[in-house]
Amino acid sequence: MSGTPKCREAILEIKPYVPGKPIEEVQRELGIQDVIKMASNENPLGPSPDAVLALREAVERVHLYPDGNCYYLKEALAARYGVSAENIIIGNGTDEILKLLAEAYINPGDEIVVADPTFSEYEFAAQVMAGRAVKVPCQNFRHDLKAMAAAITPRTRLVFVCNPNNPTGTIVSQKEVASFLDKVPPEVIVVFDEAYSEYVTAEDYPDTLAYIKEGRPNVIVLHTFSKIYGLAGLRVGYGLAAPEIIRAVNRVREPFNVNLLAQVAALAALKDEFHVAKSQEVNARGKEFLYGAFSALGLKFVPTEANFIFVDVGRDSREIFQKLLRKGVIVRTGDIFGYPNYLRITIGTRRQNERLIQSLKEILAGD
Amino acid sequence: MSGTPKCREAILEIKPYVPGKPIEEVQRELGIQDVIKMASNENPLGPSPDAVLALREAVERVHLYPDGNCYYLKEALAARYGVSAENIIIGNGTDEILKLLAEAYINPGDEIVVADPTFSEYEFAAQVMAGRAVKVPCQNFRHDLKAMAAAITPRTRLVFVCNPNNPTGTIVSQKEVASFLDKVPPEVIVVFDEAYSEYVTAEDYPDTLAYIKEGRPNVIVLHTFSKIYGLAGLRVGYGLAAPEIIRAVNRVREPFNVNLLAQVAALAALKDEFHVAKSQEVNARGKEFLYGAFSALGLKFVPTEANFIFVDVGRDSREIFQKLLRKGVIVRTGDIFGYPNYLRITIGTRRQNERLIQSLKEILAGD
Repeated sequence: MSGTPKCREAILEIKPYVPGKPIEEVQRELGIQDVIKMASNENPLGPSPDAVLALREAVERVHLYPDGNCYYLKEALAARYGVSAENIIIGNGTDEILKLLAEAYINPGDEIVVADPTFSEYEFAAQVMAGRAVKVPCQNFRHDLKAMAAAITPRTRLVFVCNPNNPTGTIVSQKEVASFLDKVPPEVIVVFDEAYSEYVTAEDYPDTLAYIKEGRPNVIVLHTFSKIYGLAGLRVGYGLAAPEIIRAVNRVREPFNVNLLAQVAALAALKDEFHVAKSQEVNARGKEFLYGAFSALGLKFVPTEANFIFVDVGRDSREIFQKLLRKGVIVRTGDIFGYPNYLRITIGTRRQNERLIQSLKEILAGD
Repeated sequence: MSGTPKCREAILEIKPYVPGKPIEEVQRELGIQDVIKMASNENPLGPSPDAVLALREAVERVHLYPDGNCYYLKEALAARYGVSAENIIIGNGTDEILKLLAEAYINPGDEIVVADPTFSEYEFAAQVMAGRAVKVPCQNFRHDLKAMAAAITPRTRLVFVCNPNNPTGTIVSQKEVASFLDKVPPEVIVVFDEAYSEYVTAEDYPDTLAYIKEGRPNVIVLHTFSKIYGLAGLRVGYGLAAPEIIRAVNRVREPFNVNLLAQVAALAALKDEFHVAKSQEVNARGKEFLYGAFSALGLKFVPTEANFIFVDVGRDSREIFQKLLRKGVIVRTGDIFGYPNYLRITIGTRRQNERLIQSLKEILAGD
């Protein structure tokens, strides 16, 4: 097919990501001003006030390239976790680290193992590198780690454990993870995506950091500043792993992948333990409120360890989504995860939760 | 080699990028406080004041994900250039767009054609995708477009024209480009990297936008907010091309690649024509000042159309670089570009230029 540029065949299979609708887009398209977003699992309290202060001080320096090595942020994370800077990779959001992992490890035809449903960007990253995602159905909305271990083949390079899982909010336990890792061949990397770990209250949540500290060569743990730290807009996530993995991923990293303001804000947010504690408390209360309200409305939901709830609305959730949108409430439909009757709703502030429930009540009553 | 995770062989050949040393790093390592950076072609006047104001207003919203579609920035760019939003891709710096182009078009064993010396990230992007860079020597520090056209083979997917070229500051003309494009097969994409175009004063600089407007399917023009717009720290670049190319590149783009503050600042900076004009003027004057000073010091240099000058220091430039560093002046050595006797020096403010020249004079006098 000469005549025009031809893109790689592998990428033709990629389905575009469906993001949560931005507030501005809803305002623009529907002409509503008062819009709240409970769609993207952002922190409803906003960014850490310390991060905002740090940003205000740094905005006049944005003509300078960022430190490509993220020196100060890595030092702070290393101190926090008791690891070395060589155990750390910082990315333009965890999204970028997922792509870097694929670029570092996936040759055409290689496989990754993921849960179904789970965060879609694992598969995306593999597809960019002409890899293939083997999807293992969740059991009772939880990762089926036994089946995932059994799905590993000689072509498997990466296994993704989203813990808590997006969109279900469920976790796998310390014991399950230990038994799982015993079965994973040492040349296969297990990626623990712990984007929501700060919200977890379950006591049997795995201590994956211990695997990094003991020098396990085939584990990487991913964290983000986009969730409880309230910096989704700035794009900064990080990975903790053995230096060999970090070096491989650094080979394919662009030199200035993490912007200057992201580094400054993340450093400040990391130290703001008060904001994290407050955010945990607001989430814990909001969770109980929404559990109560969903129960009262007769809606089944998956108990969550994260800052969102997967709710069964008992009919095509896109319809409810559209009606909520017109009331200025943005949520996420489950169809993109293969659960067309579900909504994924971010736990908000009390006021946001009340507005959601009131709107949902009116809609379900046929308003 | 079972036992540990094995990264892709193709990436083992990647040489790490050598960035300009960050000011903070020099302060930390040498214990000097008063450090100036003339190493990374940043705008010495700083960011647009309008961009700084816009940033101050936006910092409290960084808990929200950015608009993955960069709606407002694309609309503004479309209006500026008289094209459609479908002609535009925004990246986490132009660096990211280079990688996206490689991901979209380069299969293992495919080739790109680049000048030598030129910006190293073209080759990097190709290497990530197991592609190979065919390097065509510059003639008199300028792209040899005839030789580059002749270097195209059936495996060539992308040809990179860095115009003005980094690190030489030279340009190719409208006429040369027109004749070059006549020879490029229609299935090969020509990438014009015009990161420094706003500094160009030559009248025969190519109007590459015209190719986009006429719908040419195999041209993409790259611009950045990192140089004259003074937003290097925020990471935002963009590409203009036929919708087919934009769609291909969008397939491999992460959904939230451009951070929220970058979008806000770029939009404001784009409208701040005064800052651009002032930056052009400071650069024009600084260029004349440095031309004069280098001549007086007996140093040959390559006349530049950009905001940096490639200077022959007549000996191993790493030595001069180290001595300048100890005087608190960061520049860039030419060895990484294959010119070990050259320095690449960013044109600064009058004060910075004077300090550079005074320091250089002392060093050359054997101080």
